[in-house]
Order: sequence, then C-alpha cells, then structure tokens
Amino acid sequence: MCGIVGIVGKSNVNQALYDALTVLQHRGQDAAGIVTCDSGRLFLRKDNGLVRDVFHQRHMQRLIGNMGIGHVRYPTAGSSSSAEAQPFYVNSPYGITLAHNGNLTNVEQLSREIYEADLRHVNTNSDSEVLLNVFAHELAGGGKLRPNQDDIFNAVRAVHNRCRGGYAAIAMITGYGVVGFRDPNGIRPIVFGKRDTEHGVEYMIASESVALDVLGFELIRDLEPGEAVYITNDGQLHTLQCATNGHYAPCIFEHVYLARPDSMIDGVLVYKARLRMGEKLAEKILRERPDHGIDVVIPIPDTSRTSAVELANHLGVKFREGFVKNRYIGRTFIMPGQAARKKSVRQKLNAIELEFRGKNVMLVDDSIVRGTTCKQIIQMAREAGAKNVYFCSAAPAVRYPNVYGIDMPSAHELIAHGRTTEEVAELIGADWLIYQDLEDLVEAVREGNPNITEFDCSVFDGKYVTGDVNEAYLGKIEQARNDAAMSQGNVASAIIDLHNN
Amino acid sequence: MCGIVGIVGKSNVNQALYDALTVLQHRGQDAAGIVTCDSGRLFLRKDNGLVRDVFHQRHMQRLIGNMGIGHVRYPTAGSSSSAEAQPFYVNSPYGITLAHNGNLTNVEQLSREIYEADLRHVNTNSDSEVLLNVFAHELAGGGKLRPNQDDIFNAVRAVHNRCRGGYAAIAMITGYGVVGFRDPNGIRPIVFGKRDTEHGVEYMIASESVALDVLGFELIRDLEPGEAVYITNDGQLHTLQCATNGHYAPCIFEHVYLARPDSMIDGVLVYKARLRMGEKLAEKILRERPDHGIDVVIPIPDTSRTSAVELANHLGVKFREGFVKNRYIGRTFIMPGQAARKKSVRQKLNAIELEFRGKNVMLVDDSIVRGTTCKQIIQMAREAGAKNVYFCSAAPAVRYPNVYGIDMPSAHELIAHGRTTEEVAELIGADWLIYQDLEDLVEAVREGNPNITEFDCSVFDGKYVTGDVNEAYLGKIEQARNDAAMSQGNVASAIIDLHNN
Amino acid sequence: MCGIVGIVGKSNVNQALYDALTVLQHRGQDAAGIVTCDSGRLFLRKDNGLVRDVFHQRHMQRLIGNMGIGHVRYPTAGSSSSAEAQPFYVNSPYGITLAHNGNLTNVEQLSREIYEADLRHVNTNSDSEVLLNVFAHELAGGGKLRPNQDDIFNAVRAVHNRCRGGYAAIAMITGYGVVGFRDPNGIRPIVFGKRDTEHGVEYMIASESVALDVLGFELIRDLEPGEAVYITNDGQLHTLQCATNGHYAPCIFEHVYLARPDSMIDGVLVYKARLRMGEKLAEKILRERPDHGIDVVIPIPDTSRTSAVELANHLGVKFREGFVKNRYIGRTFIMPGQAARKKSVRQKLNAIELEFRGKNVMLVDDSIVRGTTCKQIIQMAREAGAKNVYFCSAAPAVRYPNVYGIDMPSAHELIAHGRTTEEVAELIGADWLIYQDLEDLVEAVREGNPNITEFDCSVFDGKYVTGDVNEAYLGKIEQARNDAAMSQGNVASAIIDLHNN
Amino acid sequence: MCGIVGIVGKSNVNQALYDALTVLQHRGQDAAGIVTCDSGRLFLRKDNGLVRDVFHQRHMQRLIGNMGIGHVRYPTAGSSSSAEAQPFYVNSPYGITLAHNGNLTNVEQLSREIYEADLRHVNTNSDSEVLLNVFAHELAGGGKLRPNQDDIFNAVRAVHNRCRGGYAAIAMITGYGVVGFRDPNGIRPIVFGKRDTEHGVEYMIASESVALDVLGFELIRDLEPGEAVYITNDGQLHTLQCATNGHYAPCIFEHVYLARPDSMIDGVLVYKARLRMGEKLAEKILRERPDHGIDVVIPIPDTSRTSAVELANHLGVKFREGFVKNRYIGRTFIMPGQAARKKSVRQKLNAIELEFRGKNVMLVDDSIVRGTTCKQIIQMAREAGAKNVYFCSAAPAVRYPNVYGIDMPSAHELIAHGRTTEEVAELIGADWLIYQDLEDLVEAVREGNPNITEFDCSVFDGKYVTGDVNEAYLGKIEQARNDAAMSQGNVASAIIDLHNN
Repeated sequence: MCGIVGIVGKSNVNQALYDALTVLQHRGQDAAGIVTCDSGRLFLRKDNGLVRDVFHQRHMQRLIGNMGIGHVRYPTAGSSSSAEAQPFYVNSPYGITLAHNGNLTNVEQLSREIYEADLRHVNTNSDSEVLLNVFAHELAGGGKLRPNQDDIFNAVRAVHNRCRGGYAAIAMITGYGVVGFRDPNGIRPIVFGKRDTEHGVEYMIASESVALDVLGFELIRDLEPGEAVYITNDGQLHTLQCATNGHYAPCIFEHVYLARPDSMIDGVLVYKARLRMGEKLAEKILRERPDHGIDVVIPIPDTSRTSAVELANHLGVKFREGFVKNRYIGRTFIMPGQAARKKSVRQKLNAIELEFRGKNVMLVDDSIVRGTTCKQIIQMAREAGAKNVYFCSAAPAVRYPNVYGIDMPSAHELIAHGRTTEEVAELIGADWLIYQDLEDLVEAVREGNPNITEFDCSVFDGKYVTGDVNEAYLGKIEQARNDAAMSQGNVASAIIDLHNN
Repeated sequence: MCGIVGIVGKSNVNQALYDALTVLQHRGQDAAGIVTCDSGRLFLRKDNGLVRDVFHQRHMQRLIGNMGIGHVRYPTAGSSSSAEAQPFYVNSPYGITLAHNGNLTNVEQLSREIYEADLRHVNTNSDSEVLLNVFAHELAGGGKLRPNQDDIFNAVRAVHNRCRGGYAAIAMITGYGVVGFRDPNGIRPIVFGKRDTEHGVEYMIASESVALDVLGFELIRDLEPGEAVYITNDGQLHTLQCATNGHYAPCIFEHVYLARPDSMIDGVLVYKARLRMGEKLAEKILRERPDHGIDVVIPIPDTSRTSAVELANHLGVKFREGFVKNRYIGRTFIMPGQAARKKSVRQKLNAIELEFRGKNVMLVDDSIVRGTTCKQIIQMAREAGAKNVYFCSAAPAVRYPNVYGIDMPSAHELIAHGRTTEEVAELIGADWLIYQDLEDLVEAVREGNPNITEFDCSVFDGKYVTGDVNEAYLGKIEQARNDAAMSQGNVASAIIDLHNN
Repeated sequence: MCGIVGIVGKSNVNQALYDALTVLQHRGQDAAGIVTCDSGRLFLRKDNGLVRDVFHQRHMQRLIGNMGIGHVRYPTAGSSSSAEAQPFYVNSPYGITLAHNGNLTNVEQLSREIYEADLRHVNTNSDSEVLLNVFAHELAGGGKLRPNQDDIFNAVRAVHNRCRGGYAAIAMITGYGVVGFRDPNGIRPIVFGKRDTEHGVEYMIASESVALDVLGFELIRDLEPGEAVYITNDGQLHTLQCATNGHYAPCIFEHVYLARPDSMIDGVLVYKARLRMGEKLAEKILRERPDHGIDVVIPIPDTSRTSAVELANHLGVKFREGFVKNRYIGRTFIMPGQAARKKSVRQKLNAIELEFRGKNVMLVDDSIVRGTTCKQIIQMAREAGAKNVYFCSAAPAVRYPNVYGIDMPSAHELIAHGRTTEEVAELIGADWLIYQDLEDLVEAVREGNPNITEFDCSVFDGKYVTGDVNEAYLGKIEQARNDAAMSQGNVASAIIDLHNN
Repeated sequence: MCGIVGIVGKSNVNQALYDALTVLQHRGQDAAGIVTCDSGRLFLRKDNGLVRDVFHQRHMQRLIGNMGIGHVRYPTAGSSSSAEAQPFYVNSPYGITLAHNGNLTNVEQLSREIYEADLRHVNTNSDSEVLLNVFAHELAGGGKLRPNQDDIFNAVRAVHNRCRGGYAAIAMITGYGVVGFRDPNGIRPIVFGKRDTEHGVEYMIASESVALDVLGFELIRDLEPGEAVYITNDGQLHTLQCATNGHYAPCIFEHVYLARPDSMIDGVLVYKARLRMGEKLAEKILRERPDHGIDVVIPIPDTSRTSAVELANHLGVKFREGFVKNRYIGRTFIMPGQAARKKSVRQKLNAIELEFRGKNVMLVDDSIVRGTTCKQIIQMAREAGAKNVYFCSAAPAVRYPNVYGIDMPSAHELIAHGRTTEEVAELIGADWLIYQDLEDLVEAVREGNPNITEFDCSVFDGKYVTGDVNEAYLGKIEQARNDAAMSQGNVASAIIDLHNN
C-alpha cells in the first residue's frame, strides 16, 4: 500500500505536495518522494523515511514549479527489495515521472516485453518502474512531438490492455501535465478535486479524499474503474473512460484498515462503514451469545476504535480505552555479544488494570492477520486481571494473501488459513472469538453506496477479481517472500536505486 | 515539564533507559539525553530531538555500564534558551550528573551564591545546571573521599534548605550510585520500583509509574515530598525524608493534562481521575443546563478522550470521535520571497462532517489555555454543519502562569486571565462554555487518594504553594518570556551547550 | 576538466574504481560518482564532494559487480550549473551509464535533435547528458536485442559524425560491457591497460596512465583520435577506429597544468615535457637577459616545481622552495552583519623571508591566467624583502578561452587578452616577465613523441581545431558565464539532479 | 603532538582561531576544537576530523566572543584512547577551558592527587584533562572572587612544581583572560605575538610562529622555558617566569619533522635548520663515500625536500622529484567476506621511472622510524629500474620512544632499536644507508640560535631531560600501547567524551 498525490497549481506546489503526503503518511511510512516540474526541468527529492525526515529546507527550496507529484511507500507484497523510493523517472519520451499504488500481477511478462520491444532496462524489482515503462512505451508509440489528451488517454488505454492487477497511478509528463488513472476494477482508490485561488483553479489527484479536505480542496469525485484524468499544465482538466472491460470491485480492506476514517472512498465514508461494522458485529454477538455477560468493550488502538464504540453502544455495554498506546516507540539495539530481542507488544501497549480486574472484557480489533499480537494482548488482559477475555474482529477471518498492493503475509503465515474460528480462538487464547461475517462486512460498506455491487474481498474469500491469479502465481510470490526473508540478513539494503544516493 | 529516569541494574542499562525515555517522551519532545557509568567513567549522549532520533546504534554501543540516568526535555517557562539538553555534568566532587524536572524560583540568587561560595561557573540559563551545582557544592562540603548514604542525604537536605520551587531530580554520583529526590511540597512527581532479574534486583527511579510498568518493573511507591532515595551501584536501596517542612501539594495539572492516563501518581490512577472529571463535569452540565439538548459528545483528541467518554455516559448522550488527528504533522517551509504561514489547526485535525451536520455538539477538551486552537476547532465544527457548538473543559479556567516547571504562557496570553466564562465563550465562539469547578477537579483527583489534602492549583487559583512567588517575580518571568520571544529571530539557537556539539 | 575511469574485472571493482578516482582527483574535486553492474542491475552512488567524502562504507557495500565506471568532476566552461554529478543514466536502450571528460560545442543543436528524433528529455545543463542520449539513440537505432562490438562501434561512429568538440567518454552497457571512445581530434586524453589476476585478465580505461600505474595495471596504449575500445563483461577486448576524419591534435594544456607529472599522455611523459619547458625557458632567459642577475629560482607550488628545478639547473642558479603551501585551507565564514571577505593568497602561501631578503628572485609558474594570484604573490615576495622580482611562465600567454572542457575564464578576464608581455608585467608588478614561446612549448612536448604533428593550443593562439568555433559561439559562452555568475547568488544550487538527493 | 592557539581580540575571534588551526593542522589531523567566551558564557565546538570538516557555518555563528582558544589533536603516545577532543572544560573555579600540546609523565600520580585533594573526577585517559584539573585546583586555592595576573602566575608556578613532562598549554579563564605556559625545559614550542587593528591591539598565542604570520600577527617571541603569558580580556599582556628550575632543552624533533619549515622556533628558522641538515649530511657522504657515484638525489615527499635540495647542491648532483605523492588518499573498504587489506605505499607514492632507470639513486628522508615504508619505497625504486638504491636520513637513528607528546612507536617497533646502521640497511634493502650524526643534527639547529645549549634528543640518545623517565615507566607505556592495540578491535571508539555527542 502506498499513498500518491499530484497537483497542477498556479504557484509552487512543493508545500502542498508535502502537506498532502503527511496526510497520506498512514498509507506508507517507509519512503517518501516528490518531483516537481518547472520550465521543462524536473526537481526530485526522495529517500527512505517519514515525510518529515526526508524533506529539509534545502530540498524544498529546490523543488520549484507549479506542477508535481508525490509518493509515500509501504513495501509491497511480492517485492523482495525495500530500496526503491518513488516517483520513478524515464527520460524518453518527454521525461515522465510516476507514482504508483498497487501491484501488477503480470509484472514478469511485462518486464520481458518492454525489454524486447523497446530495449528498456528496468533496474529495480519494483513493478512501479515496469508500469512507468509500459506507459512510456505506449505514449512514445504516438510519436507526437507535443502530446495532447488523446495521446495520453490512448496510452492509458494500452496500459489497461497490457497490465493486470490493482493500480492507481499518477504520472507527470514533463512540460505538459499530470495524469491519474485507475485499474479497470477500481481496486485501489484514487480521487480528484479542485480549489479556487486568486491565481486560478488548482487541481489535485490523491489516494484519499482526506488529502483534499485538509488542503482545502473540494472533492470532485473518485476516478471510475478504468478512467483517467489529465490536467494540463495550464489547468485544463480532461477525463475519459479508458477501459472497455471496467467494472467496480474496489478493495474492501481499505474500509477495514487501510484508509483514514475521515476519507470518502467510492462514495462511502470510511468512518461510517466502520460504525456499521460495529453494529453488525454487535448483532452477531447478540445473536450467537445472547448471554454474553460482557462488562466492558475495549478497543485495540487505534483503528478499531470507531467500530468498538458502536459495538458497545449496540450491546449496551461500557466502552473504555483500557489500552494506552505508546506513541513514541523506539528501536531495540543490538549490543556487542547480545542476541537481538524482539519488541514485545508490551512496548506498544500498556493495560490499565482498573478496566480489566475481575471483568469479562470484549477486545475489539479491526482484523486478525498473523495472530501473534492478538495473543500477546489477550495475555496482557489476563495479567491485568480479566475474568474472561473475549475477542472480536470487525473483519472476517483473513485466509488468503493479497496480490493487489497490500503487504500481507503469505497464506501459511495467516493464523486463520485453513483453521476454524474455534481453532484460532484457542491459538490466540481467547475465551471466545467472533469474526464479522463477510456478507455483513460487505453490507456495512455497501450501505454507503449501493451502486457498488462487488468488492475485492480476496483476503477473506480467495476470489481474485482480476481472474489471473492462480495457485502457481500464489506459490511463486510465497517463494519470493521466503527468499527475500532469508537473504535479508546480508542483502536487505544491497540495492541502491539509480535515482538515489 | 520534563521526563527523568535513573536505573541501577545488573547489566548494561542503556536499552532500558532508552525504552523508559520513549515511554516518558510525552513529557518532552525537545531534547533527550542519557549518561551511563562504567568502571568510574561516564558515557554521555544528548542532543535536540526525539529519543528515536537522538540515539543511534553507534551511540548506544558506547553507552556502557550498569548504572545511568536519562532525560527528555520540554522547554521550561522562564528559561529563554532552548539549547540545553540534559543530563548536566560537573566533575567536582566525584563527577556528578543530574537530570531535572521542575523549576527553581530562586535560581538567580542560587547562581550568585554558588559562584561566590565556590567560584562555580554556570554556563547556561538552565536552572538544572544551578541545581546540580548546589547539590555538588553541598556534597563536596562533606569532603569524604568515599561518600555514603548519609553524605548524599545531607546534601539533599541542604538542597531543600536552599532551593525554592518544584523539582524532581535524579543524580548519579560517578562510581557510587544514583539518587532521586523530590521537592518538599512534592509538586513534581517521581516514583521508584524494582524488578528481579537472574543477576539480582534492579532499581528504577522515574517521573511516572508507566515507565516502570512497560519495562517490567514493579512500582514500590512515590517519593514523598522532601524524601530522597539512594541506590548504590551494588544495589543497596536507602530512603530518607530530607525535608523538615515537607507537606504534600502535588501539581494537579499532571492529572489534567501532563501525565499518561495509565500512570499512578501519588496513589491516584490518572485515568480514573480523568473519568471522574468527566462525571463531575456531566453533573455540572445537568445541573446548569438540564435541557442541554446535546446530540453528541466529541473529544478534542487525544487527552480529553477519557473524560469525554465518561461525560457522554453520564449525560446519556452518544460519544463519537468526530475529529481525526493527523499523526504525521510536517513543517511549513519558507520559500524565498514568501512570508511564513502559520500551521492552522486544519492540518492537525480533520472533522468528520457526518457527526456534526445538523447536530448540537458538545466538544470536550482537557483545558483551555490560550484559546486560539479552541476557537479554530469551534469554527471547524460550524463549517462541518453543527447546529450548536457547546464546549466544556475538564479543568477550570487557567488564569495564572505556572512557575514550577510547566511551560505555560504568561498571564496576559491566557484567554481566561481576567475574563468571565461568558467572555471566554464569546471569544472562542462557543454557544455556551462550561468549565469544571476547581473543587470538583480537586475532588476528582483526591478520591483516588484521600490522604492528599492539598494540591498545587496555582494556574487556576493563583496560589503558589512555595510561598515565595509574588507579583515582582511573575513580572520578571513575563519580561523574560517577552525578551526571549523578541530575540528569538536571531539568537534562538545562539548558545552551544558546553557538553554538546 | 574531469577524470573518468572504467573497469571490467573478475571480482568486485568498487574499491579499484574508488582508488582510481582518488588518483584522478586532481582532475576534479567538485563531485564524484561510481556506478557498478551486477547481474543486469546497476548500483549508483554520486554526490558533490571529494572522493573520500562521497563514498562511505555503506555505499561501497552496495556497489557490487565486476564491471563499473567512475567520474570526478570539475565544472566545465559554458555550463552555468554545478549540480550535476556523473555518471549519467538512461534506461533505453539496455540501460546505459556514461562518464564524460570534455565539452561538446554543438550541444544546443544536439539537444534539440534528440528531443525531436527520439522525444528524449534532457534534464540538466550538462553536455554529458546530451552525449549520453546521442550515444543511446544511435545504439538503439541498431535495434538489436543483444548488441555486439559492431553495434557499439557503429554507435560511436555516429556520435563522431554528430558531435563536435573535445570528448573522452566511458560508457557502460548494462549486462554487456564497457566502451571508451575519444573525439576525432584526440583533444582529451584517454588510455587503457590490463592486469593479470588469479581469476583472469582485468581491463581498465582511464583519463590518465597514472591510474593504471597505481593500481598495478599495465598501460596498453592511448586510444587514438576517433578510436573506441569495447571490453565485454566476459573480458573480450575490441578496438576500432570509428572516425574517418580523425587527426591527432591533443590538448597541450594537459602537459602544462592539468595532468599529473607521472602520467604518460599520447606517448609523452608529462614530467619530462615539463623538464623541457624549464630548459627552453632557461634558454630564452639566457638569450633575452644574458645578464639576468638572478640569485634564486623559486617555484609557485605545486605544478611549476618540475619546470623550475630544470630552469634553475640550466641557469646555474639555486633552486629554493621559498613559498610554503598551506595544505589545509579552510573556509571564510560570514557572520551575521558581516560582509564576505576574500581569501587572500596569504592563506594559501607563506613566504620564507630568508630566501627573498635582498635577492633577485625568479618566480616560476606554469601559466598565468587571470593574473590576480600572480600579483599578490609578487607583492608577497617584495614584502619578504626581495630586491627584484622576475616572473616567468612555463606556458605562453593565455589569451583565448577554452571550449574543449577546461574551466577557463572568458577572454576579457584573461590578463594577457589583448595585452603585450610588458603590459602584463606592469599589471602584475613584476620587474620583468618572460613567457615561454609557443613553438618552444610545442617542441617541449613533441620531443616526447614526434609523431604528433599538431596540438590544440587554442588558449594560446585562438585556433580551434574542430573548426566550428567562431566569434558568435565564443560570445554566447561568455554571455552564459556572465548570466551564471549573476544568478549564482540565488539559484546556484537550485537544481536537483534527478539522480541525486 | 598537537597544535594550540589562543586569541584575545577586539571583535569575534572565531574566524581567526579557525584560520590559525588550519595553519597548524599539520600538527594534528585527528580532532579539532574551539571554545570562545562572550559575556561570561562559553561556546564550544569540537569533534573528530579535520578543521574544515568539524566547523560548519552553524557552529561558527555560535562561536561568538572576542576571546577564545583552539586545538588540533594528534593521538599522543601513552594514551590508549583516541576519543577526546580538546579544549577541555571544568566549571570550578571560574569556568576554565584548556588546550594542551605535550605529555605529562607523572599523570597517574597527579590524577590520584587531584581526586584525593579535591574529589575532582577525570573522565578520560587524557593527560590534558589532568593538567586542566591541576591548574584549576591550584587557581581555586587562591580563592579570589576575581583573579588577577598574580593568581594566574601562582597557579602556573604550582603546575610546574607538580607536573613532569613536556607541555605547552593555553587556558582561558571565563570572563578574565587567556594564559599560555610552557614547561620548565621548554620541550614543546609556544610563541606569542600581536597585531594592531582599528579597534586596538590583539594578541595571539600559538604553537608555531607560522600561525602568527599567516594571520598578520607579528611575532613577539617564544615563551621561555617555565614562563607564562597572561592576556586579560581587556587586552593587558603580562609575562612572568614561573619556574625556578627552568633550563632550555627544546625538542629537536620539531626541526626534523614536526614543524612547518616556515616556522621560527626558539629563534631558529626550521627551514634553514633543514637546509643545514642537508649540508651536513652531504659532508658526511663525501667523507664516508667519496666515490659515491650518485646520479640523482630524490626526496621522499614532502618533509625531506628542503634537506634533499641542499644535499644535492653540496654533492653537486641533480635533485629530482622522482616520486609523486597522491594527495587524495582514500580509504580501503572491507567488503562482506573480505579480509582487510593494507594500504600499500604504492597508493601514496608513484615513481617516475625516467628518474630511476639505470641510475644510482640517493633517496632522502627526514628520519626512519619503523622502516616499513622505507623498505617499500626502496623496492619501488628498484622496480622502477634503479641500478643502486642508497638511502639517507636527515636525522640520526631513532632508537627510543618519545614521552613528551610525540606519537612514536614503542622501542621494539623502532627498526634501529638495538641495531647497527648496516643491519638497518639490510632490513630496508638499501645498498647503503647513511644516518645524520647526532652532533651534526644538533649543530644544524644550534647554528640558528647558539644560546640554546641543550636539546631534548631522547628519541636518538635515550636521555630524557626531565630526569624522571626510567625503564619502569617506559615498560609501562609500552604495555599500555600493546593493550590499546589489542583491544582496539572492539573498544576503539567505545568512549564517548562527556563533552561530545
């Protein structure tokens, strides 16, 4: 998962891009980058780290220009390397830079094709670099000295024909404009909006509407599946549906965990979807455990808080913040002659005994992935004196890997993979465990926009909407993850991106 | 306000000090420092920045030794400089390092005295350096080649006789041990605890009990007002009441805002005190506004959440997280030829319209200081569609400056200074405003430990428990603040601490 | 002027490239870069600064691979920007990186052509990026999936047809090999050599033979004008004359000042050429000033020492190091409210009075460019008590700008531009001044290799061997220099290279 | 060996101190520091590295004040740690900072005494910190609130009574002035001078006169053995002989190698002393090898050049710079799985074959210490084709360790320790070897100032002028060196100085 943003403004856009990236920082804390364009010249700064650490005064001063794009990165499943920050750049045609959120499932084939067709060298493991080269190749095919919106949209159309997977991308054509496009299933989110300034109208494209809100932009709408938006450097906005086979199947996990609650995705307010998840979960509890005997509902901070408040309301049980999160987690250093110790959950959360002692507590989390943290938290609750510890997950059991850009473990690392709810409950040490039903989750989100008839729920049901994900593919990415993990000791940071120091 | 910690352990204490400082980071994000002692030699690292930014692998590797102290700093009122990180060091006698939380009110006189009596040069504006030199001078007076607990306690006694103000301090005597002491009114908090390890018992002294919890130490108790605890480097723990005039008057603002909710201060769980603040505030609302018509209670994140939950419970009104906090605030850069822009509250908080549109909302904050943020938040609530915006403060009106170590503005900057509640309500734009009554606040805390008969409530009632704070003193620190503010443009960072690069 | 190096080895070449760059550091102290290739992937590190400051352990560890190229940069005349470090990279075709020494005189036309023909965006002011794109375009024209030596040489041939100016370049074709080529006049130097290792033969291409010597490579020979050498990644070496119009006219200024004395360029040992310059200068002095009355010959350290020793020998006069060079020059800092002060020559040189007091001293420098330093040095000699100060230059009067890659001032800044020797002598304050005659300089170098019939002596005689340099061109680069100088205050470092942070 | 400087000026002295340190940088490239005093407050910056790397604009801006001292450090023999940069600071009395060049031979006893007498903790292995504490203790003894010159001189007198060894030191008394003092034998050099400015007379104290020259100060004179100079902050200069037993025995090695040739030490111009070393060496060669058959004299750059020129003159043989020094030496990096390789002399020097091929060459070095470099250079000369390689040393055989502040190996590492000239010649591979005779060396220096009747020549003759250096002491420092070397792998940088980050 990553966050992307692009702005075509009327004065320097560096500060606005920077601010937007801080608002999108929850989508990726691993690396950050901004490229701006001024008088046909590009200015780039990117590096590993948080936005606030990557950009200093001296960098910002150089990022001049009224047009630019930015990126925050979270390592993507299937990519063994963590060394590539975005935006990426190719100099032909026109000089194109691109920021990408998602994952291509046919990246190997594409990589081969662009080398064979165009002799284009791809220097990283990043599918984003491949996506950029595919787009560049298709745009070059037009051969226009000065590309217009039709050329841009034709290139996006060709990208849709060739690329498989989930992707939302923002590219800048040096000297011409900024284009945003979304995969034909609309798996990854992307919105655009505008604001009026004294110098004229400015446009922003971003992963989430909250970036628009905070910067005073007004949301126009989400890009539709397969649609592209192109804003020329003089401020003309064009949109076109570039996919013939597009149909809406957005990633439901955005609503469960990824997105900020105050974002509006595909017409659904994430916050409200989460409230409804709490409601529906409460109904299930009341249905399955009418005599639940719960004394207090306690969220695992921070994501599950919204669901948990409403769950408590519907159960008619007290909501209490029984865990305090340590907001300033540090590192564990290895001293000479010492083995590495694992950061335990104790360093991240502290239990307020008062809320646990002698009570039946219902812990609420947004989802359960590996289950290791769950287990420790339940243990903490018991040590704090809880009589019984119940656990519920606002999402169904996570049983399958994600292939559309969320960094999720491979199947065998998922605690619920091939296990029943009872087996998971026992493994994590809960007195009982309740998962949201998938229909309920879908309903909780759909109520916000009944026009969406389908979601990508692959991590829950193993159905991959792009139709090209089979056992062989899943086996290959699992192998890649394992290889990456094993070699991490000595190669982890062995790759210097070409565009970086 | 600062956070302090000291550990006498059985193996290297660097990681434990580091972890403790991250847990105490909410008490100061301005600078951090650790000094350790090994075989009579000190190892120091301190710098401006967060704990995670100040200490790198190379620093930690050098911070060897089984004994050490640490500090996180928040700039203190009355100090015009922000350049001094702690711990401080003097080499005579014994080599002493010290970390301090609080503020001395007679620092000028002390500074003069230590120069005249001992020719001791103080190189910073920090009262902590003065406190260290007073302690060092008194300890040197013993003239012992090898100081024991009596010498240490005598020195603390003399410190109490000479120093005025609020202070909790931890000092390390090179080669001998670590001593913690608390001012005779117990204004600033300090606790100590222990943990068993395979190598023996380890002791920790810290500003808040949460540092003990997270590191697996068991809280023994708070230091009493005027009391000192001395732990020798071989693990003997001694305590002694070193003040003759000690009486309990701890700072109530720790419970309102400063401390983590999961800390236990002077026998009171901060979290529970805040729940009671919510209760009592609800009672006042029901009393004064029986037909309040409130639709939803919304906290200003993060501190007020605990009070707000309970306030909502007692009002029987929905509690909702209507504001989402941006956790990754960045900087505002100044581009050439541009004026500095102020970060607005919009970049810190985003309103979820759904919770405001057409409703009577009750916003809850822990306290109101300058009122500028309040005003912007209320404006945001209105822009989000609120019908009426009510505001309540879990603490009474803040009307007086703090002189015991909390960085509070001077009187004329406090919105409630010399104003009625109605006047403040009008200034911040609230439809109505309710402050907690001071008796209720005191009661909310006291219920946790009825033995405490008095609190320092000076910011609310202008009564300074040390008895030495008069108009002249307050005028002087106000002047100092103004001078500092005015010269900040060109001198702010003009001071290099002697112990720093 | 820059230094370039490329190695195709049998194990990691990073250390060897690094060492070679330190040996070539005299050719450019402004920036440094290395790119290596391993398994079809490139690893790059480049930044402003000396070699020893640019490469740290963490960078070197990532620069893996048996093949790579490196660069040290000196800002080139005509380039207004100092922000581009090399090697440069384009990803199509194959992924090509390039390091360049020299200057193209038709860069504007080329830049336009490559955009129009190939839509290739050039993001810097660097002619090296243009050269790379021309080469890339020509190599792409072959369209081969796997290029062989013929494809490479054809591309070089096309480069020679299109590019004007002086250039020695080393390019790496990702996965295939390293190619070095030299402009058809052989203006800039480039050599290649080999060494045997236990794993097989390794090849190096470099600006100067001294890089070969120090690393234990044996000089094979200089590339001939227009010739290219291509070493495949498995160690096959191919050479081909790629120019039809090549004729030898190497830059004579390499011998005067640029090259290290222990380098062998075009068959001439620089050191020996300088000895002969001293001899010939002595003969001229004896001829023109038979009663010279010189008491001591004193070089201006460091370059002129070789000529000066031999000059003294031939005059039969003592040679003495009367000036001591300060090897650790620092910066002049600007304090608030202070005007910038110029570093005077006094901070670089200190005169030993003993060698000046009451004597007729002959100061020897390699050449006189602006004359400002000369003037100060002569003044120092007088202050040290010299009776008469004579000055001689091992090179003729510098009267014209350089357009082939040496950073020389524009014409009007050259003290000898439009002035007689006597006028220059008066301006610099010398009692008399002797310049080497151009025929003598040419002879001094040619004696080392009589096969070279012509040199580029343009800075002395204004004859530009490429035939395309006219008044209009010179006027344009002079204007560019002026513009650059004027805007330096606020834009100097305003350009971030795309490949840099 | 270190370089020290102190200035009492009429405006900010930071730039002047910085410039002076760059001029003294040859005395120590390991660390650098400056402390200034303004309005009773100290500003310090020190760190490992060259002067140009330690001080940036932000540091310089903070180093305000008209008075200050500076230091460049070379690790001293007998000190196992390399982590302490100077100046050092103690806060009592007055706040004193000190920069020291030399070595105390009774540091252990002093360290014990100052702890016992004053409970002063010394946190480093540096004898400089001990010297500072002794001085501070003695100055505190006066007990004056405002010390005058008598108090200062009394403290220096007491230092002389208690300290043994060689030392030149500059201390600053915060708010009062700067004092320089020299050990009673005058082993280490120290001079002072003045310059007139529009604001009044400014004074500088420095290790070498060249720092005065370059900054436009006029040399007043050397401090005499045991003498002190005190310059008050308002510009009054006082001097006093503070030793009763002082007698001149300056270190002769300053003239051989340490000092810059353009420095005047104890009335002797180092440059001229080196010329005379060349003369006397020539005479010895002519005496011992009348038929020497030498074709060319070649110096090992840089120090021996002065002697070699004159040696060649007196022999009537050509002087030629046959070795070219690489001025930009880099590091050798350790790649994973690779053993560390030693930098060979080949990376530092390159031989110009022309000057060696078929010739009898006389190589000249200033001295021979370990002999390892010599051996490699002679080997290079042979590989370059020399017929015979003769070697001469401008100093006698180095056979004993230095205990007065020069970082010299211990006895058993000295190639000449216990060996005859012939044995050394064989070991280094020279056809024959000639050492300067000690009487000749002494004479070469003494001719510059016949008033000096004795020199410290201990490295040549094993006679230590302080009279307290015996076998036991030498054994102890040898042991300390060995321990340090052995533990370097894991502890080398394990010490953080208290005053550093």
